[in-house]
Amino acid sequence: MLLCDIGNTSYHFLDGDEDFKKCVKTFNPLEIKEQVCYISVNDKLQTQLEGLDNWINLAKSIDRTNYYDTMGIDRIFACEAVRHGIIIDAGSAITVDVMRNGVFEGGFIYPGIHAMMNSYSMISPSLNYSFNFEVNLDKMPKNSQDAISYGYFKTLYSEVISHNLPIVLTGGDGEKFTKIFPDATVDEMLIFNSMKKIIQKADIC
Amino acid sequence: MLLCDIGNTSYHFLDGDEDFKKCVKTFNPLEIKEQVCYISVNDKLQTQLEGLDNWINLAKSIDRTNYYDTMGIDRIFACEAVRHGIIIDAGSAITVDVMRNGVFEGGFIYPGIHAMMNSYSMISPSLNYSFNFEVNLDKMPKNSQDAISYGYFKTLYSEVISHNLPIVLTGGDGEKFTKIFPDATVDEMLIFNSMKKIIQKADIC
Repeated sequence: MLLCDIGNTSYHFLDGDEDFKKCVKTFNPLEIKEQVCYISVNDKLQTQLEGLDNWINLAKSIDRTNYYDTMGIDRIFACEAVRHGIIIDAGSAITVDVMRNGVFEGGFIYPGIHAMMNSYSMISPSLNYSFNFEVNLDKMPKNSQDAISYGYFKTLYSEVISHNLPIVLTGGDGEKFTKIFPDATVDEMLIFNSMKKIIQKADIC
Repeated sequence: MLLCDIGNTSYHFLDGDEDFKKCVKTFNPLEIKEQVCYISVNDKLQTQLEGLDNWINLAKSIDRTNYYDTMGIDRIFACEAVRHGIIIDAGSAITVDVMRNGVFEGGFIYPGIHAMMNSYSMISPSLNYSFNFEVNLDKMPKNSQDAISYGYFKTLYSEVISHNLPIVLTGGDGEKFTKIFPDATVDEMLIFNSMKKIIQKADIC
């Protein structure tokens, strides 16, 4: 059995201990013959996946009443895995969700690295820089690259730490954000582990 | 004599007490026959404007040693007008600069409303919302529109208030941000007033 967490840009598979990604644009889910337990935030793939017998949508096995209607299923699965903490899932979007003593308090969405960099470069060619992950967040910047890096990272940082909760980093870019949140726990398998828990609980597969 | 603050998208003129804008893409500076004292962050217009005798670049009348080389001249003029405070200039980009007791401490750049909205909608069609300026910043959101609105506004807010300085709002979207920073002073004429001060000091025009 495979696990699969489908985002806007890629299928993220877990096969035993090994994880691998396939591009949403080019991968054909018919290629997989074995059973796949999946979650997906990608509406475009919904009809195709629903028509495949070996693709089992785990979204149906979760109690969504604790969350809100349009909340991405990946965020819900991440929250299900954390009893007390603030979860930063850094992918094409960065979702930040608060779980306090087992209760979902809400969450917000911030652009991912690529989207935000694009946003600056579209404003002006003079803001077309890569982010500096080593930027000093304790000092106001005095050069353009640091000015956009601080604008992206420090604003997120200031808001996240204001919640005074343990920080859990996950997602494809989770590791990169340890530079910004040095005290965070990184758990790249957070969603897959949550999926395993739901599978066991619901006795699926 | 006219004053003009040129950005990436428009020429912002002040004629006596009246201000008006012209689009960078369509306006021809040759149309103006009288003297114009200007500042510009738009590199593309530099050669043309330098060639016009009646367009006087005020950037040359300022001591830039207090600032940094690639800092936009509009930010420098805004800082010259504030002795002690944090200046939020909300246009196509949002620049945030700290002046403490007359000294420039540095600043950062954050995407403007249009650029940030674009950034969310490019990540996924499911994030294609307008920002809700009425979003409650004291409570974590539980719907998608508020999740992106909070992601944009509250991160900026948390960082800005952490500096514990009087807040000055300016720029084309300055008024809109009073919803987010209700205690801020709005000064839409900040840069023009700063230009007037420099003109007097340098005895130009």
